[in-house]
Amino acid sequence: MHNNHDLSRRKILVSIAAGCALATQGNSIFSNAEVRTVAAGKWPWPYVKLDPADTAELAYHEWYRVFCGGAVISSVFSQLREKVGEPYRSFPVDAFVFLEGGIAGWGTICGSNAGANIVSNLIIGPRIADSDDGVLIGSEVMQWYSDAQMPVYTPKVPRFPGTIPKTKSDSPLCHISVGRWMKAAGKPLKSPERRHRCASVAASVAYRLVELLNAWHEDQYDSTVESSSAIYGVYTQGNCADCHGSSIPTLSR
Amino acid sequence: MHNNHDLSRRKILVSIAAGCALATQGNSIFSNAEVRTVAAGKWPWPYVKLDPADTAELAYHEWYRVFCGGAVISSVFSQLREKVGEPYRSFPVDAFVFLEGGIAGWGTICGSNAGANIVSNLIIGPRIADSDDGVLIGSEVMQWYSDAQMPVYTPKVPRFPGTIPKTKSDSPLCHISVGRWMKAAGKPLKSPERRHRCASVAASVAYRLVELLNAWHEDQYDSTVESSSAIYGVYTQGNCADCHGSSIPTLSR
Repeated sequence: MHNNHDLSRRKILVSIAAGCALATQGNSIFSNAEVRTVAAGKWPWPYVKLDPADTAELAYHEWYRVFCGGAVISSVFSQLREKVGEPYRSFPVDAFVFLEGGIAGWGTICGSNAGANIVSNLIIGPRIADSDDGVLIGSEVMQWYSDAQMPVYTPKVPRFPGTIPKTKSDSPLCHISVGRWMKAAGKPLKSPERRHRCASVAASVAYRLVELLNAWHEDQYDSTVESSSAIYGVYTQGNCADCHGSSIPTLSR
Repeated sequence: MHNNHDLSRRKILVSIAAGCALATQGNSIFSNAEVRTVAAGKWPWPYVKLDPADTAELAYHEWYRVFCGGAVISSVFSQLREKVGEPYRSFPVDAFVFLEGGIAGWGTICGSNAGANIVSNLIIGPRIADSDDGVLIGSEVMQWYSDAQMPVYTPKVPRFPGTIPKTKSDSPLCHISVGRWMKAAGKPLKSPERRHRCASVAASVAYRLVELLNAWHEDQYDSTVESSSAIYGVYTQGNCADCHGSSIPTLSR
């Protein structure tokens, strides 16, 4: 989905720009605003390969502080703040606590999926820049999430000691994903089991996201998804009966 | 929902910090990283009152460049970049094009709603900082959006000359909001009418968002919503039959 030559060239240019920004910190040849513009408004952001399991562990434990979306963003950006520096240090990760519960508890997109999209689009850039890999990786995570028996990842030092069921959501939505798991587990929303489950889902998404970002970084990413709108011609999923049963509304195309 | 005395004190402290950051640009007593941390990772971000109609006009036209979510963020932040400076200048607005079509075309949360939540939570901060007004304003926009005959706002120089119908979504989701409008209008997804409609929805949301931010800025914001999870005890909306018809799944509570 990208031109390898162009991508490699871009990576070199961004690395030079990032190196300049780091080298001049505290002794700047740019004004602060100029350095920031170079770093945050040009894509791709400098990236180094991360360990998926280390990232998943960070996401699991961060869930208990900043919840699903914040945990996915923090798990990736906290490492890149250390290994790369800017523009990761300037990004206000904690503001994204509101992704919890499918955006402020409204049950729309699972915050882990929203966080993964934010990370892939911040690092690789929007499709209106020069690559659609960022939006494709976000979609690929959502498709994988919908198809997986979740949680996929088991944390090394879990905060709930017992075993919990795994369920398939067939949807990127919090309301459906959490609802199906709660029905299978017979556990309420505020139970330690449900909290451990959603923390483990954030860890699973962070793991998968880093696998895809690492592949992209090595010019090995080849998307398995297209955008849903391209497939169905209307903004939606394809499994209408999952929610609508036998009364599926008809739409203009 | 906040302590007025504490909020005023915080605003003064942030204004001082922002003033220092601006005054020392290019002749810094901090390192770049320190200035950025003060600006982006502390809340609330410095804010000045904006004109709702001016903001709506910006959002309408930006829709044709960065689509719904990007347009709402850009309409507010482009003005604050000029009037305030940092941390708005450093925030990579264009990365949020992916909010289009309910997150990358998946039809989940309408990008205008996602963009409004991002703006209110970036400016006011997350509920784990010291105010829940950011997340409450995001929810308030979503409730207003769901209840409104959309689009509410009519742009002064529209890119589509004719009149279009208004519809009520009863939901913050793109899939439902756009689908119901398309059914009423009899117009397809790629029509100029539908594009004008979604640009006008982004403008409507930007207008309402700035009204609420202006009220918050003057210590006049008093939320009319609670979080959905607090009301229903499970992450979801309350109008189950709208999607599920007569086959509403039962959930653990």
